Amino acid sequence: MDKRFPTPPQTEQSLTDLDLLLQRARVAARELALKTSEEKNRMLLEMATALEDACEEILAANKKDVAAAKGVVADAMIDRLLLNKERIFAMAKGIKEVALLPDPVGKILQENTLSSGLFMQKITVPLGVVAIIYESRPNVTSDAAALALKSGNACVLKGGKEAYASAMAIVSALRGALEKMGENPDYINMPKDASRQTATALMTASGRVDVLIPRGGAGLIRSCVQNATVPCIETGTGICHVYVDDEADIDLALSVIENAKTSRPSVCNAEEVLLVGEKIAPAILPRLQKRLTEDRTTQGKPPVRFLVHENAAAYLCGEPATEEDFHTEFLDYILAVKTVKSVNEAILHIAEHSTHHSDCIITTNPQTAEAFLNAVDSAAVYHNASTRFTDGGEFGKGCEIGISTQKLHARGPMGLEELVSYKYVVRGNGQIR
Amino acid sequence: MDKRFPTPPQTEQSLTDLDLLLQRARVAARELALKTSEEKNRMLLEMATALEDACEEILAANKKDVAAAKGVVADAMIDRLLLNKERIFAMAKGIKEVALLPDPVGKILQENTLSSGLFMQKITVPLGVVAIIYESRPNVTSDAAALALKSGNACVLKGGKEAYASAMAIVSALRGALEKMGENPDYINMPKDASRQTATALMTASGRVDVLIPRGGAGLIRSCVQNATVPCIETGTGICHVYVDDEADIDLALSVIENAKTSRPSVCNAEEVLLVGEKIAPAILPRLQKRLTEDRTTQGKPPVRFLVHENAAAYLCGEPATEEDFHTEFLDYILAVKTVKSVNEAILHIAEHSTHHSDCIITTNPQTAEAFLNAVDSAAVYHNASTRFTDGGEFGKGCEIGISTQKLHARGPMGLEELVSYKYVVRGNGQIR
Repeated sequence: MDKRFPTPPQTEQSLTDLDLLLQRARVAARELALKTSEEKNRMLLEMATALEDACEEILAANKKDVAAAKGVVADAMIDRLLLNKERIFAMAKGIKEVALLPDPVGKILQENTLSSGLFMQKITVPLGVVAIIYESRPNVTSDAAALALKSGNACVLKGGKEAYASAMAIVSALRGALEKMGENPDYINMPKDASRQTATALMTASGRVDVLIPRGGAGLIRSCVQNATVPCIETGTGICHVYVDDEADIDLALSVIENAKTSRPSVCNAEEVLLVGEKIAPAILPRLQKRLTEDRTTQGKPPVRFLVHENAAAYLCGEPATEEDFHTEFLDYILAVKTVKSVNEAILHIAEHSTHHSDCIITTNPQTAEAFLNAVDSAAVYHNASTRFTDGGEFGKGCEIGISTQKLHARGPMGLEELVSYKYVVRGNGQIR
Repeated sequence: MDKRFPTPPQTEQSLTDLDLLLQRARVAARELALKTSEEKNRMLLEMATALEDACEEILAANKKDVAAAKGVVADAMIDRLLLNKERIFAMAKGIKEVALLPDPVGKILQENTLSSGLFMQKITVPLGVVAIIYESRPNVTSDAAALALKSGNACVLKGGKEAYASAMAIVSALRGALEKMGENPDYINMPKDASRQTATALMTASGRVDVLIPRGGAGLIRSCVQNATVPCIETGTGICHVYVDDEADIDLALSVIENAKTSRPSVCNAEEVLLVGEKIAPAILPRLQKRLTEDRTTQGKPPVRFLVHENAAAYLCGEPATEEDFHTEFLDYILAVKTVKSVNEAILHIAEHSTHHSDCIITTNPQTAEAFLNAVDSAAVYHNASTRFTDGGEFGKGCEIGISTQKLHARGPMGLEELVSYKYVVRGNGQIR
């Protein structure tokens, strides 16, 4: 254990419990790192079966969480929290799918003989102990556990207090499967204390947590990024832009805008801001207004509210947009709209307002598209397609543990390959320097 | 600019200066990201020439730093600080060598058509604004500037107060070269205020610094890791182990141990701890004692002091080692020595004491070597070779900006390839999800 960064003095029992948990997780991580793909896949299949078998217990625990949450949290949150048999079986299916994915550990990334005669291999290895701090969706518990195990990492799962009983029932089933097979249950860990204090302790467990991945709303992410002394991956917040160039196909643009904004407004890859070339604005904005309000109402779908910059107000009705609106992740049926003079103005606006998640240009001009794709510095940049595709499944990763919006380590959807590091293995016959 | 994480209210003039500098660096980073390899190489060659041309000014500035430091800091530190014509020309040569290295930006890491019909490319891109906080060695200034520029990153160089005049003279020469060519000098930045306050402001400049790389002693690294809210790469501290297995070639072992301990004890890849199989201990330790003390004294070289665990005391004279000694980076002619019963005990000791930098096994048994190389989780693991090889140059990277001892993003020596991220460029024809 790295002693250079001692944790602060611990006085509370709950922290002592966490210390023990982290010590056991470290030992388990060393064991798990040496397991073969076959051994890990067998564990995953047992975990999936155990989850199905524990359906009743998990539903009973979930009922407690939901009862406690009613009236305390918003209905949308209760829906996220709610489990049923289908959802539990879908979680089990998710684990089985992870078993089928290729093992990211032990891949030789590079292999060569150095000038000193040493034979060097750069080989992927697990990260070690991965801590995930998340909110109320119980399926994150089984997804994260499966991804961590397949990538050879021991995990510490700190879910939201409001989902504690459900998460604990899920973790008990998964750990039970490992125990039954004679494997170490400490590959998957959940602190008994679901309080904020545990989250803070994980953020500052230097040398004991190798990476912290927060999953949740902007508040949770900010708290982790600001307080973590362990390596942390910023995920998820998305102020995504669609820019409609003056040379765009208007029908294609309308279809992409509606999809990016409305197919699932609560997620991070949804569009929040529309930038429109000022020459095409008079042609497209009135049609957009009709399509996203009247037409949707007629179809029984929620209409979109427009927050309109003064430069677009001649073509689009809506509330006046403030500067703050262009820095806001609405996660709702709300779209901020502004016109721009050129692709360069669009690029500049995005540089100053984007969270570097996903941004899109709609244009028929290939040079303009290239300029945008080169200059916009986001995890995913799109030409003529919806920002909603930024997703581990869509990107061919099979799954995701989060979407990185920082540039260190991983960017965009993070699957198994993003849950490993590497080491250099160097073989010699007495070389000295 | 990402506004989700506002910096604390700023009251001091120096912080306002830094804000302006970071704003200019951000704009410069966007420009630099779009430069071709040829443009960047031309800048590097001009920078090298400018450094040679500014030799007199740099030496004059350095004289001031050295005069101010005398009597205040240790002699070893003054030697690190001291420049002469040769050292300045070596710095220029270093910049020219960086110009010859392959450009790490714009590499296509992956390219495929997704199930949605989207054509996706994963392409390397610069990190953006890279801040380097370092200590007194002035050559770090030019090395870091060259590496950052070649990898398309604007840099913010915060050197030690004691080397301020030297670093500023170097940065002036480099920025002058850019200006003379009509390029933006803000690719290379140095805050006017060299105080600790500036370091703290850089560590917390979320959304404005993309990555922070501390280079220096354990105190500096710890301060950055504990206080940074920007993504930070932990570098450099090395408690490196050599384990001599019972089945080792003793001559080879002695040669590797002496090299790993004494060829440059002040650096992070030097050996600090020797673990010896208890069966081979009686044969090797007395010979080691003679070789590292008497023989070296005879050769006019500094002898090594041994800190000896009680289990090795029968075969080796020295001061008794404390538990703390096995957690200490001596950076000196000091070696802590302990015997172990087996390779597994060696692996466990290393797991609990190593900083995961470089660790080595000396053995003639290939199975034992494999067990060690697999189980030891360090950036570089060696079989029958000195730990001193963990170095960007030796690893074929041409250069290094530091050696990562964490597992996120990069591990081991970090050269140009470790100074880039990637983005997903996705081209469609109207795909919606």
